[in-house]
Amino acid sequence: MSIALILNRARAEEWKVEINKYLPEIKVEIFPEIENYDTVEFALCWKPEIDYYTHFPNLKVIQSGGAGIDHLFPKDIPSHLHICRIIDPMLKSDMFEHVLTCLMHSMKKFSAYIKGQEKKHWRPLLYKSIGETKVTILGLGEIGGYVAERLAQLEFKVNGWSSSPKNLQGVSSFTGMDELSAAVEDADFVVNVLPLTDATKGILNHSLFNMCREEAVLVNVGRGEHLVENDLLDAIAEKQIAEAYLDVFHQEPLPQDHPFWDCPPIVITPHVASRTNIGSSVLQVVDNYRRMTDGRPLLNEVSLKKGY
Amino acid sequence: MSIALILNRARAEEWKVEINKYLPEIKVEIFPEIENYDTVEFALCWKPEIDYYTHFPNLKVIQSGGAGIDHLFPKDIPSHLHICRIIDPMLKSDMFEHVLTCLMHSMKKFSAYIKGQEKKHWRPLLYKSIGETKVTILGLGEIGGYVAERLAQLEFKVNGWSSSPKNLQGVSSFTGMDELSAAVEDADFVVNVLPLTDATKGILNHSLFNMCREEAVLVNVGRGEHLVENDLLDAIAEKQIAEAYLDVFHQEPLPQDHPFWDCPPIVITPHVASRTNIGSSVLQVVDNYRRMTDGRPLLNEVSLKKGY
Repeated sequence: MSIALILNRARAEEWKVEINKYLPEIKVEIFPEIENYDTVEFALCWKPEIDYYTHFPNLKVIQSGGAGIDHLFPKDIPSHLHICRIIDPMLKSDMFEHVLTCLMHSMKKFSAYIKGQEKKHWRPLLYKSIGETKVTILGLGEIGGYVAERLAQLEFKVNGWSSSPKNLQGVSSFTGMDELSAAVEDADFVVNVLPLTDATKGILNHSLFNMCREEAVLVNVGRGEHLVENDLLDAIAEKQIAEAYLDVFHQEPLPQDHPFWDCPPIVITPHVASRTNIGSSVLQVVDNYRRMTDGRPLLNEVSLKKGY
Repeated sequence: MSIALILNRARAEEWKVEINKYLPEIKVEIFPEIENYDTVEFALCWKPEIDYYTHFPNLKVIQSGGAGIDHLFPKDIPSHLHICRIIDPMLKSDMFEHVLTCLMHSMKKFSAYIKGQEKKHWRPLLYKSIGETKVTILGLGEIGGYVAERLAQLEFKVNGWSSSPKNLQGVSSFTGMDELSAAVEDADFVVNVLPLTDATKGILNHSLFNMCREEAVLVNVGRGEHLVENDLLDAIAEKQIAEAYLDVFHQEPLPQDHPFWDCPPIVITPHVASRTNIGSSVLQVVDNYRRMTDGRPLLNEVSLKKGY
């Protein structure tokens, strides 16, 4: 039995070293350099090419190299295969820290000060305090729920919106499309941490921006495909919303001719909100390999029907 | 008996309205429009001119309009006068939020992303997490102690340095000039929240920067006079320290020809870290007036000897 790594080479080399620390007896191979495709039962994948799983006749488990599984072509995968994702504890806290940075940066007007410094402008601006700031988190899974609770601990006023009701400390819960408007209508910040599924693709669109206050700020740390990019440009031009902090895009790197670059109310970060940290995640992968071998239930298995 | 307000006119008008809500029977006058100087026993002051207190032969209490008293010429004031400052609960939390914004902004490399966006640069940079970031707070009084404890709650590793030992939750305490080097030598951030006294004036100087790691970032939210400005420019040029977030300056607004404007590792904010909020502070002023009238001990009285 062996493990196949279907990732870019540099990253795959790192995973191989880490996995072999815990499973020295197991062969770990980097696709497409696989000695015997028949022996592969477990594949660790990140953004593989379409049909990647068809090479391995005895594959049992597809382990995503991160929190999302949308990049694995989940709708095509035969139903006998198990798909798991990584819930990296660092990934959750990194995401919280990135979102907090966007919130504070906007509330304390740091964009204006940094741009003003180039022009030698001394212009004190009014600021908002945490206690008077309302944040709505779209998506209350492992990551979104953590972000929502940490922000509530800091005394932000936090609404959370998800497909099923959640009970999180200090977070008002809203559920389903019927309650989306109520969840976002008072928000100073709307933060998207949803998984990418058929139901959530394009959810950051004209209709959502219409529900928001004109002072509202969008923070997208989910996936680029959650956002209808032209609707955001229109919403900013028409002053339906005030600003956007975007970390993910339809195409990455963001193309040079993309209008987001030149839109001052948009702050672009180059997909840095969080990275799956191999060191803090490897044990989840190793554990799942052992669980598969022993026939025990897998960690963080994804429902193909729900898509998360 | 009457209260004199020695502040800029717009601010004084606001204070007058607020004080009269609680003390409608007391005459509140804005200096120099004082009907009878003999009746003034209580003066609320912010950055008055030298000898301001000599106009009032029966003055008993000088109430600072903010947290600092350095602007009141404390060394000149006769010892029979009482000096009090305002400890505004909003001021402490505003200061914490401003410091947090500077820390996150630097850790998550937002300056580089905002400047990079103008050039359409897509360049992911490594970031630090809160749990791996060491912060040293210089000054553990009402404000500095609060900032230190809040940062420790967020799981920053926090050192505190002050003139006398403090016992704050999660904060390692260092005391006196002998321990300054030990307090700052490992710090990723050195945050100055000291009061301005003879002992602390110019404390942010060549000698301190020499104690710091070359990756260290200075955050000055104390007073401009804590910083030897040329020493900072030298320390940045010689890569003794990496960056500085400055909110206070020797001269404000910062003069147009000041070299700080054009120094990219320096982020300038126009004295916005915190403002004394009249609404949340007026009761302290009113209470002190009543305490003076009743002969009870005053709130937040300052030791003229220590200067804070």
